[in-house]
Amino acid sequence: MQIREAAAEDWPRIWPFWHRIVAAGETYTWDRDTSEEAARSLWMNPAKRVYVVEDETGAIVASAFVTPNYGGPATGVANAGFMVDPDRAGRGIGGTLAEHVVEAARTAGYRAMVFNAVVETNPAVKLWLSLGFEILGTVPEAFDHPRHGRVGLHIMYRAL
Amino acid sequence: MQIREAAAEDWPRIWPFWHRIVAAGETYTWDRDTSEEAARSLWMNPAKRVYVVEDETGAIVASAFVTPNYGGPATGVANAGFMVDPDRAGRGIGGTLAEHVVEAARTAGYRAMVFNAVVETNPAVKLWLSLGFEILGTVPEAFDHPRHGRVGLHIMYRAL
Repeated sequence: MQIREAAAEDWPRIWPFWHRIVAAGETYTWDRDTSEEAARSLWMNPAKRVYVVEDETGAIVASAFVTPNYGGPATGVANAGFMVDPDRAGRGIGGTLAEHVVEAARTAGYRAMVFNAVVETNPAVKLWLSLGFEILGTVPEAFDHPRHGRVGLHIMYRAL
Repeated sequence: MQIREAAAEDWPRIWPFWHRIVAAGETYTWDRDTSEEAARSLWMNPAKRVYVVEDETGAIVASAFVTPNYGGPATGVANAGFMVDPDRAGRGIGGTLAEHVVEAARTAGYRAMVFNAVVETNPAVKLWLSLGFEILGTVPEAFDHPRHGRVGLHIMYRAL
């Protein structure tokens, strides 16, 4: 498994699991029918530093980004997003990628990282807690989950 | 005092106080030197419903926007932003505008309103609390305030 910065030509190999995850509507506050073009603008945005994880065969199995969470006087706080190919879930890829991204954010000079909208039923909440993130607060009933109904969105935080 | 939806041609009368407020760097997480063109794209964005307050002489003394705070499965939660001309501060304009905007958001079908980054030293925090908003959490030391140093950013919430 190798983690490296993404190149523009990686996108077609990110899109299949990106689309599958967003279309499922369980973890991201993006339109479930986001087009490939809009998705590419969101994820491969020049304001973001984007990473990919390749497995032993060279397949891309996960991706993440880091970007400032705010502008102006609050640029010292990072935001990040993570997607692991659901076919590769449960193998520790998300945790390894998250540790890499947290370290990269610290090296880039960020003082903290914030997730603005973590669906409270997302199994990743446990991962973030295990990596030192805390739940600052929860927006109640903010997210229409296809199986659980209206669930909260956590704001999560970690100093770097 | 009259509150109405903004028209594109109102922008040149919003920009002077918009610029003054953002350049002061005490309340907004936008670049202090945001250009007029970038500011117009941010504030008069087609995704936002924008309001202005006119005084008796027809001068624009405040503006606000309402927009979805999230996309996809969480579009039921609104975000809003408010600016009152500092020369007109302390006359209740912000409160009257806020009540109008909260009511407009409810009418538009939003179930709740969230502010993602309220600088904890901003006097408006008191106004939001008086209008039924609560502090869900605070991102510590996230905002470099020109006079107070690093201060927190509140996430504030109100059901509609």
